[in-house]
Amino acid sequence: MPVFTVLGAGAMGTALCKPLVESGWEVHLWGTWLDDHLLDCIEKGEPHPRIKVEAAPGIKTYRSDELAAALEGSDVVDIAVTSDGLPRVTEMLLEHLGDLRALCLTAKGFWTNPEGRITLLPDAIRTIAADKGVSLPPIVAIGGPVKANECAAGEVTATTFACTDFDIAKGLAADASTATYGIRPSDDEVGVELCAALKNVYAIALGIADGLGEASGIPRHNLKAATFAQAVREMSILVDHAGGHAETPYGLAGVGDLEVTGLSGRNKLYGVRLGKGEHPDDALKTMNELEQTVEGYPAAPLAVRFAGQLGVDEETVPLLHTVARILRGEAGDVYKAVAAAVKA
Amino acid sequence: MPVFTVLGAGAMGTALCKPLVESGWEVHLWGTWLDDHLLDCIEKGEPHPRIKVEAAPGIKTYRSDELAAALEGSDVVDIAVTSDGLPRVTEMLLEHLGDLRALCLTAKGFWTNPEGRITLLPDAIRTIAADKGVSLPPIVAIGGPVKANECAAGEVTATTFACTDFDIAKGLAADASTATYGIRPSDDEVGVELCAALKNVYAIALGIADGLGEASGIPRHNLKAATFAQAVREMSILVDHAGGHAETPYGLAGVGDLEVTGLSGRNKLYGVRLGKGEHPDDALKTMNELEQTVEGYPAAPLAVRFAGQLGVDEETVPLLHTVARILRGEAGDVYKAVAAAVKA
Repeated sequence: MPVFTVLGAGAMGTALCKPLVESGWEVHLWGTWLDDHLLDCIEKGEPHPRIKVEAAPGIKTYRSDELAAALEGSDVVDIAVTSDGLPRVTEMLLEHLGDLRALCLTAKGFWTNPEGRITLLPDAIRTIAADKGVSLPPIVAIGGPVKANECAAGEVTATTFACTDFDIAKGLAADASTATYGIRPSDDEVGVELCAALKNVYAIALGIADGLGEASGIPRHNLKAATFAQAVREMSILVDHAGGHAETPYGLAGVGDLEVTGLSGRNKLYGVRLGKGEHPDDALKTMNELEQTVEGYPAAPLAVRFAGQLGVDEETVPLLHTVARILRGEAGDVYKAVAAAVKA
Repeated sequence: MPVFTVLGAGAMGTALCKPLVESGWEVHLWGTWLDDHLLDCIEKGEPHPRIKVEAAPGIKTYRSDELAAALEGSDVVDIAVTSDGLPRVTEMLLEHLGDLRALCLTAKGFWTNPEGRITLLPDAIRTIAADKGVSLPPIVAIGGPVKANECAAGEVTATTFACTDFDIAKGLAADASTATYGIRPSDDEVGVELCAALKNVYAIALGIADGLGEASGIPRHNLKAATFAQAVREMSILVDHAGGHAETPYGLAGVGDLEVTGLSGRNKLYGVRLGKGEHPDDALKTMNELEQTVEGYPAAPLAVRFAGQLGVDEETVPLLHTVARILRGEAGDVYKAVAAAVKA
């Protein structure tokens, strides 16, 4: 039985275990130093606190000091920690890295490298590995519209596995798909990663349209749909400039993930508050009190800087800049600001 | 003042008058033989019965026997009747056709030509005109995410005007846009028309995902997002085969319109019923009793035939065929059927 080790016992790492067990892998789930209480629940067979679903039966759990054991015999590893935790976990992983078929990545976001440049997470991993003189296996970016609780419950889910070596993506997709977990292989690592990093920012804009509608009593579906289309358009431009395929945002990683993120999720709910007129700082404080991390908030200025690095100016991606300006409290009338950015 | 004549006083025709008046046109609104009660309300300054919004002030209304007067001095005409009514209105229009800058089309759907082939509505108009030996002005397909009630109320709306002569589309877009009505010009008439004809069918699938979630108490957002992405994918394949641009469905006409249609609308609501387990015939009967026309129901078998004409088989557009099969009551378990069609 091939071994798949998932690093990070949060919502997404635990969810991924479900199709992996069902597709015949021996699954090791390693928890970070922050995950002990999550592993406690999993080991007792209780629902995972964050997704309210029990972890797949048969997985082996490992505590933060058991990384070597968790990785022993592994064929594939997935990093499923937060983007903040990724550098440290990567360093730990590199000390024990065996001969892997692939290193998967469900962690998503931007990373600021030591020179102050914004990069995507695979480049963070590559930079850290190069510093240590460790050579890496092929990296597989996992993206698409996956709410962890539904995936963990075995609900129908479509996802994408992207690797610059397309055969690796295809092979792993074939070996990890199940009757309810469909995997579309892709060769566009950059596109999948960038869509995932951007979507939380654009989801705030979708939430704003919803919030404007709720506040006024007039549904603003035309605005939300125009915002959705503009977000996809800007994602395509940015992916193209970043060296990915302009078409990737039109598939599961872009349109699909934006749809699921715009249906629910914390970034959208934060946007709803802004659309209803709350100040961005007050709304963030409320979300934090509710223990709702708004990933799009810190991501917005990073995304703007990333676009600038690519030479993409504000006129080309006005919605991205508008969200960042709204979050800085500098946009004035939110309805007018979003409208100006999405008007064809 | 240039004159814009809108044919059809239904929801979309009346809504279009709003940005036209605001962008400086003299607007003539002609009602068909079915529209007298609608014109009565408009003339009295009462809200339009279908959209609950008053028509734009200053428009001139014309009854069905006043078509010649309505068209007198017109620079641009828009056909905004149902696809059923289009052939007859086209014949009437051709008798009075002056020298127009453009013939716009907000009517959407499929048409079966005398040889039994399925075509889009611009081809219906061209066929009818050719039969009568009348030469047509450039046709401009109007599409995108436009809920009529919001457009009529002056809410922010983004739309697309498509003409094979791009300069015509660009010029008209410049002359009809307002601060709240943004128009993106396109040269892809086929793409815009086909997206609009297909989206009602795919909106049923989106509704099914919602209905499955409501019935089970488990949100099925991953399924809805996968369905959305698959719908866009299939629309792109079909547009490409029909001679349009594969990218058109990724913009306002596809992604945008599907988003607004999946947020609300009769086709989506019909799909919700199916997802909750109602038989398609029973659900249709209920919708009809509520005077809710489900355009996607008759469109589905036409879309399947249209795909067949293009040489696109079921394996290539499985979701389209699945919706048609569900509507025929032949799909068995609806969840499994949709899941099989959208699994990557």
